[in-house]
Amino acid sequence: MIKGVVFDAYGTLFDVFSVAQKCEREYPGKGAQISQIWRQKQVEYSWLHTLINRYKNFWDISKEALCYALDEIGLQYSPKKIRNIMNAYLCLSIYPDVMEALQNFRPHKLMILTNGNFDMMNPLLINTGLNNQIDEFISADAAKLFKPRAEVYQLVVDRYKVNRDEILFVSSNAWDVAGSKSFGFTVGWINRLNKPIEKLGFQPDYIVSNLLELAQMTKDK
Amino acid sequence: MIKGVVFDAYGTLFDVFSVAQKCEREYPGKGAQISQIWRQKQVEYSWLHTLINRYKNFWDISKEALCYALDEIGLQYSPKKIRNIMNAYLCLSIYPDVMEALQNFRPHKLMILTNGNFDMMNPLLINTGLNNQIDEFISADAAKLFKPRAEVYQLVVDRYKVNRDEILFVSSNAWDVAGSKSFGFTVGWINRLNKPIEKLGFQPDYIVSNLLELAQMTKDK
Repeated sequence: MIKGVVFDAYGTLFDVFSVAQKCEREYPGKGAQISQIWRQKQVEYSWLHTLINRYKNFWDISKEALCYALDEIGLQYSPKKIRNIMNAYLCLSIYPDVMEALQNFRPHKLMILTNGNFDMMNPLLINTGLNNQIDEFISADAAKLFKPRAEVYQLVVDRYKVNRDEILFVSSNAWDVAGSKSFGFTVGWINRLNKPIEKLGFQPDYIVSNLLELAQMTKDK
Repeated sequence: MIKGVVFDAYGTLFDVFSVAQKCEREYPGKGAQISQIWRQKQVEYSWLHTLINRYKNFWDISKEALCYALDEIGLQYSPKKIRNIMNAYLCLSIYPDVMEALQNFRPHKLMILTNGNFDMMNPLLINTGLNNQIDEFISADAAKLFKPRAEVYQLVVDRYKVNRDEILFVSSNAWDVAGSKSFGFTVGWINRLNKPIEKLGFQPDYIVSNLLELAQMTKDK
């Protein structure tokens, strides 16, 4: 029995590669490459800061990941240019299936559990209008750790006083799927990029290619 | 004052991309691509298993990373083929600077601190002759966690009863450099691939392009 639906934000509701346009304007011909390395490093840095127990918020990590990406490609930058590109994170595109799917998940309570700290997530929700569709968001910042550490998923359970498997957790990030399933949530993997399943020992309950499919499959559950 | 030199194994002494030849024989034209994805996933899986607190030894993780790599490229495999390719990890090439450099680090005590479990590291040391050059190896398997968790670096301190900065820790893996420096070792980064420094907030004490340079720079320290 599902009592609430919790969505990952980056990559699941918001297209993290939509920053490529902003990067492209600043560095013509390099936008896609920057956005790929940037995302890879952003995720890696969230894991590594957690592993070495040196928490920094996701905005700062994202900024440092951007600088690394530019260094690796051999591009020059100034603090002003970094600020300018970083602002793309405050107005990411939402995936085309999001708005309709969120309505289809009703009447469930709809939440976001994100690595993003308040100051980067709140403006993004407002800018995209998702603040009107989502009941609440919880940030890993409250635990000073990032996903997939159990303490972060636990924030949802602490807040809603439900059993773990009564939460339908939805993510397109395969590592987040493994972590949330290991934690005990009921899990839906939005496999947007048609990737093989991660061999981490945890299978999601649902594998779909978009959010509309998942809303359909979990109706009346 | 350095009282001992501790080397990372995979990527630092042993060329993890030397498995490409074996992959190439099994999958003509795909050896390099397999070895790249395989290594990336192997490292990711060691981090993720640690983050979700589901330890498996490094041999098993490496095997699962190989299967993922083959899945991603769309290649078929059997258990026998996986075993066959995995055996490449028991006879990796050592980098050309290793043997001479190890002699140049004397009279220091020379150790390895590796994610690899005993059953995969011991035959590799024997097959490459490094068992005659290294005084001892310590495996993360003893902590049931992987680097860069502090508990793994702590194994060295527990074993040798030295101060953290009296250990010269040597790695070519930039994330291992950040983790070991965060822990408090004196750290040398063997930047074999000429990469930018990771923006994780920890700078190594030495940055060199091979082990011979580091032995020279740390002589009499």
